[in-house]
Amino acid sequence: MQNRLMPLALTMGDPAGIGPELARRAWRALQDSDRVFFWIGDPALLGEDIPYRIIQHPAEAAACFSEAMPVQRVTCPEPVRAGQPSSGNASAVIESIEQAVQHALSGAAGAVVTNPIAKHVLAAAGFPHPGHTEFLAALCGTSGQEVMMLACPELKVTLTSIHVSLKQAVETLSAERIMMVSRLTASALRRDFGISEPRLAIAGLNPHAGENGMMGDEEIRIIRPAVLALQEEGINALGPMPPDTLFSAAARPRYDAAICLYHDQGLIPVKTLDMAGGVNITLGLPIIRTSPDHGTAFDIAVGPGETGEADISSLLSALGMAHDMACQRSASDAVNG
Amino acid sequence: MQNRLMPLALTMGDPAGIGPELARRAWRALQDSDRVFFWIGDPALLGEDIPYRIIQHPAEAAACFSEAMPVQRVTCPEPVRAGQPSSGNASAVIESIEQAVQHALSGAAGAVVTNPIAKHVLAAAGFPHPGHTEFLAALCGTSGQEVMMLACPELKVTLTSIHVSLKQAVETLSAERIMMVSRLTASALRRDFGISEPRLAIAGLNPHAGENGMMGDEEIRIIRPAVLALQEEGINALGPMPPDTLFSAAARPRYDAAICLYHDQGLIPVKTLDMAGGVNITLGLPIIRTSPDHGTAFDIAVGPGETGEADISSLLSALGMAHDMACQRSASDAVNG
Repeated sequence: MQNRLMPLALTMGDPAGIGPELARRAWRALQDSDRVFFWIGDPALLGEDIPYRIIQHPAEAAACFSEAMPVQRVTCPEPVRAGQPSSGNASAVIESIEQAVQHALSGAAGAVVTNPIAKHVLAAAGFPHPGHTEFLAALCGTSGQEVMMLACPELKVTLTSIHVSLKQAVETLSAERIMMVSRLTASALRRDFGISEPRLAIAGLNPHAGENGMMGDEEIRIIRPAVLALQEEGINALGPMPPDTLFSAAARPRYDAAICLYHDQGLIPVKTLDMAGGVNITLGLPIIRTSPDHGTAFDIAVGPGETGEADISSLLSALGMAHDMACQRSASDAVNG
Repeated sequence: MQNRLMPLALTMGDPAGIGPELARRAWRALQDSDRVFFWIGDPALLGEDIPYRIIQHPAEAAACFSEAMPVQRVTCPEPVRAGQPSSGNASAVIESIEQAVQHALSGAAGAVVTNPIAKHVLAAAGFPHPGHTEFLAALCGTSGQEVMMLACPELKVTLTSIHVSLKQAVETLSAERIMMVSRLTASALRRDFGISEPRLAIAGLNPHAGENGMMGDEEIRIIRPAVLALQEEGINALGPMPPDTLFSAAARPRYDAAICLYHDQGLIPVKTLDMAGGVNITLGLPIIRTSPDHGTAFDIAVGPGETGEADISSLLSALGMAHDMACQRSASDAVNG
């Protein structure tokens, strides 16, 4: 199957961050594997220690991958200094993302894997989106349906809210949102992870899941009705589960993904278990998108040809997961016509 | 030092729960150790497979401990059926706790270790306290100053709120409360854990600790001022820290305890790391108190002489930690006069 798989599109991310170094080191790590990717970025960032080949189309990537990193050229208007981001290069950062999405939408790329960007740098150049994920959803024409999944080998979580205050996450919680996120999660587990009958654990919001309303009534008013409605739709959902014990080693094998009701409810257990290898996956897009679970790390960024202390494991996990998801989706779609 | 250490007082807990079985098995596990305890309960719950000795005073415990479990008698008014709690026995449950506290306050017991109780069973008998911890604080005359610490080998957390809804935890968060909990935590780390210069990590409340107010302003209004005030008092406090990365393997060695701003922020990482071995410690009392981090487990309780499937590791951790804390406090108090 891997011969037919389209290559993965890896974006540049902020050119002054650790993205360019990670891309180089990822190619070194994967050049003899079937995880073929091409990088959409400025070759001036690569240095002379790495062989690369400029390609015009993703279809050229596989043939050269074992010998040179395939690069689709995007040019930074300003000189790049590692660790010193500039909004003068925002146009190149954005173009890299746009091209990756176009290739994935057209089927020429199997998935999009994004290197980290810095929101404040892009915002200074007039970028109107609150973040990477929202921009991708806009490019795909599915704004508002994007859902964040975070995955490590031991645990997958999806979130009903992401970058809002804890207070707002509590106040805006709704049965509709829980159901939407649960349906997307179940669908992705089937199509992209090959789990034919996915089991969802819906977290409670309050300590001990409210203990029959003694500590908060959201479980009674919102969460339990959502769980019951999901069950009526035929989704294998259990909950509301007491949040503190939901992520223990004994509980994790009982479900395929946990639906979490605020950012840290899901991210604390994933990062406690596996800080380096966590992968961020965006559900609700027509394309597959993964990203490493870290930021631009300007403080440890290095220039062309240099090797710094950035940890490559999360990007490698993101590339590996994108590859596996693309394989599985290809197989699932073949079966389901 | 262990020869001079006073024995630990272990309460009965609910006689229909797993407490009596755990007490028997704990004595078997520890009878050849220096972790001498006496059990304050009804010997009718013990069965014939275990040797026990009725004692009148804690001072008698050490002499017999290697050969028989020391028992200070409390009598259940009604027959006990495992798994079927009765409020008719509430008086004995309460008496066991009261005696344990009295012995610890008088110095005859080194610490109190509590077996789990069922709040609703005691409430039906007119018990006016919201929980175990609050009752202990009332017995010690320190109501309102009780603070919950949860500890496992990898991590210690203390909580600024416990059994309230998440919404209420957010709404009632205050700099005063964070400072009070931080002071108590620093003091306990010094006196009871032998850490001469404790390092506290104060968690943020919001995703990414609010990212400069973009996702919630509690970090700016409440948490940062509390951290600065603590630093001015000479307490080594850092924060507000982004909550999701605070409990990773890389971050944990950088602090001795994390101050958490709601129940699950602290309990999720501890139980994700170590479900079975977590110990609940109450700070803010004049006595040392630990308890296993589980409930009465009526569904798996067994009768006298029987062995069920209850996991004894949390109670053993609670007894071990109480012992170590009592040793350390004795040493600290000797040095500090």
